[in-house]
Amino acid sequence: MYYDVVVIGGSAAGVTAAVTARRFGPGKSICLVRKEEKVSIPCGIPYIFGTVGSPEKNLLPDTLLTGNGVDLKVSGVSGIDPKTHEVALSSGERLEYGKLILATGSTPIVPRIPGVEKQNVFSVKKDVPYLADLLEKVRGARNIVVVGGGFIGVEFAEECRKNGAEVSIVEMLPHCLMLTYDEEFCVMAEDALRAQGIQLYTGETASAILGGDSVEAVKLASGREVPADIVVLGIGVSPNTDLAKDAGLAIGPGRGIQVDRYMQTSDDDIYACGDCAEKYSFFGGKPSTLRLASIATMEARIAGANACGAHRENPGVIGVFSTVLGGTAFSAAGLNEKVAKELGFSVVTGQAEAVNRHPGSMPGATNLRVKLVFDKASEILLGGEIAGALSGGELINAVSVCIYQRMTASQMATLQVGTHPALTASPVAYQLVNAAEQALMKTRAS
Amino acid sequence: MYYDVVVIGGSAAGVTAAVTARRFGPGKSICLVRKEEKVSIPCGIPYIFGTVGSPEKNLLPDTLLTGNGVDLKVSGVSGIDPKTHEVALSSGERLEYGKLILATGSTPIVPRIPGVEKQNVFSVKKDVPYLADLLEKVRGARNIVVVGGGFIGVEFAEECRKNGAEVSIVEMLPHCLMLTYDEEFCVMAEDALRAQGIQLYTGETASAILGGDSVEAVKLASGREVPADIVVLGIGVSPNTDLAKDAGLAIGPGRGIQVDRYMQTSDDDIYACGDCAEKYSFFGGKPSTLRLASIATMEARIAGANACGAHRENPGVIGVFSTVLGGTAFSAAGLNEKVAKELGFSVVTGQAEAVNRHPGSMPGATNLRVKLVFDKASEILLGGEIAGALSGGELINAVSVCIYQRMTASQMATLQVGTHPALTASPVAYQLVNAAEQALMKTRAS
Repeated sequence: MYYDVVVIGGSAAGVTAAVTARRFGPGKSICLVRKEEKVSIPCGIPYIFGTVGSPEKNLLPDTLLTGNGVDLKVSGVSGIDPKTHEVALSSGERLEYGKLILATGSTPIVPRIPGVEKQNVFSVKKDVPYLADLLEKVRGARNIVVVGGGFIGVEFAEECRKNGAEVSIVEMLPHCLMLTYDEEFCVMAEDALRAQGIQLYTGETASAILGGDSVEAVKLASGREVPADIVVLGIGVSPNTDLAKDAGLAIGPGRGIQVDRYMQTSDDDIYACGDCAEKYSFFGGKPSTLRLASIATMEARIAGANACGAHRENPGVIGVFSTVLGGTAFSAAGLNEKVAKELGFSVVTGQAEAVNRHPGSMPGATNLRVKLVFDKASEILLGGEIAGALSGGELINAVSVCIYQRMTASQMATLQVGTHPALTASPVAYQLVNAAEQALMKTRAS
Repeated sequence: MYYDVVVIGGSAAGVTAAVTARRFGPGKSICLVRKEEKVSIPCGIPYIFGTVGSPEKNLLPDTLLTGNGVDLKVSGVSGIDPKTHEVALSSGERLEYGKLILATGSTPIVPRIPGVEKQNVFSVKKDVPYLADLLEKVRGARNIVVVGGGFIGVEFAEECRKNGAEVSIVEMLPHCLMLTYDEEFCVMAEDALRAQGIQLYTGETASAILGGDSVEAVKLASGREVPADIVVLGIGVSPNTDLAKDAGLAIGPGRGIQVDRYMQTSDDDIYACGDCAEKYSFFGGKPSTLRLASIATMEARIAGANACGAHRENPGVIGVFSTVLGGTAFSAAGLNEKVAKELGFSVVTGQAEAVNRHPGSMPGATNLRVKLVFDKASEILLGGEIAGALSGGELINAVSVCIYQRMTASQMATLQVGTHPALTASPVAYQLVNAAEQALMKTRAS
């Protein structure tokens, strides 16, 4: 069977690539192949374990495909032949393609520590039956240890805690979320976790999983043993590249499928996007290890369009994050102060804090703190961090646009913003603008 | 007494100009003169009448000035002499200035209709004792008629309704908020008002105020009489320019104090900002009638900096609005479809709608609808409208940045955004990006 466009992979990247291909190729035949019967919304997975309550309530609807005239085949893929333009399905069927888009995703990294194979040690697989099993066990658990204090780890911990279990996080770095936020924001996030009774073991590594057939405790490098009837591993992912490798496609230095700015692989008729694809930083073009659903969909909108004749370019990964811990939203975009300095930037930062209402006696008034990081010489915005009110989850997207546009502190200090008593800080106190002004003041003073 | 910088006016523009002058002139002597003993937060005024409950809880704190080393003088100003660089205060004192910043604000327009001088006919003055009197009367009122269905009118109506009175709005145009939103958004806003029991008389003008000494009804041009023990007039403002005129400064075609892009008036040592200053559109530079606190503070950050040696430029008014009606946030930035067409643009629009959570079973899931308006030939963004969840109040500021940066639909369709289950739509469904994609599809199809 021939299709103009075949997409392999049915999560955020694959679906978005297929839908975008449909938009840019209204007359094209498009097929998406995925191995999962049902697809979990990736970012929603931690919320299955508390707020949402079931993997069945966290599914990416197939109507996104069927409603856009995309054929769906549920099957594994056993091989790709770039010469004959063929995809061999595990079902035995062969698909001929005009353009192929690989959106094969990533697999959780399982650390090689003794006992990791024991029962009730889970990683965060995007697999509905596996997640349903984990959910049942979480509900009966007394002690849960989450290994890894990144986004998935802290979100899992908070959700698992809602079931009443004792929950601990083991994080190798001095703070949770430290790859994303500067220390002062990490401390706020950790305070929010501790306030919920979650135990944090930071600057600690899990050296062994103890127990019989089933896990009974996690042994830390410091010697401490933390009791556990369930262990959840959230220490990162590695790109799924086996199919690409077997087809002879080039692999990048970050172990993803190598792509150019058009998301084209080393074979011009094959694109890759999402977690399986190599990432490059917006800041200088170095390889990046960031893997997010929002990056995946951005890349998919490029790959899907280009597979139908467009020439969209990927400017590189900015990295825009959000989470909510203890009711406080934490967001970040671009480089934080620490990372920017590590990359050799001379930086100047600005901060501003105000409630998200005016006057402060308006209901719902919640603090909102903004930190901006600028390159000192050019005054160009490199990154921003926001903590506080939930509206920060959209404000960070204004910051992302400012980064993408390489705006200067002076431009940001005179941004035209919409403000309203029931929605935002006052125009006098508006945090984004005042953080930019503060950075300018520091530049002038130095 | 000599000051390097004298600011006349103590509302959003004046305060922001003084604080910015302090930032850019750390060693300068700065004085702000205002006639009001206490200053109302301008955007908060409607909320005094329901949510906030007192004008005393809606004050701009003087610590903004005193904490920044700005001298405050409470006095009227009787005249300005540009030749001698002197300001004469009503108190008899004379201030000599290096640079003068006029932030004299605006005055509500009172329509010349019979009976408008009757008791209990109010306009929305930024005057604390006047507002306290109005509040007392609103609390005892049975029938309140708001003349003018713009932002101030609809917000006043909603807040007054919270006191239990029958509230009506009389709006000349076919819909409320029609100067800002396209019809479909106006209809949503009107539905939200009607759902609260507010009576709307659109396409109607108030032709007379009836009654004895006090108002008893508002007569409409159609002949209908609407009972009223209180009338609130919210039909717009006119810039306060008397001082500027008397000092011989040029007045612009929109009847504001004429300013260039540096916010300099026809006298190089005198700046003007906020409602008193002439406005020019970001779109082509034509005079604009938009007057908002957020525009005022943007201009004040330019005027205050430039009075201390900076050369910030005003790119012209984009116009970014937000309000909340019946719990639904309505925001807009730039040109709506109707206005863009009236200005001669060939436009293409895109819309996208999704809940602001993912999966949709996350608590707080609320619909959020985004409409974007692009110039068809260049694909450059001209404006956006957002209705639904309160997070739209910050999302509109991302739209504002995109307008300011003259971003194209293609750029916006591949924006890197932060998404999170508890904060936003999924990255697959993200409204801002999908609205841009939809506009591109229409362009391609046409």
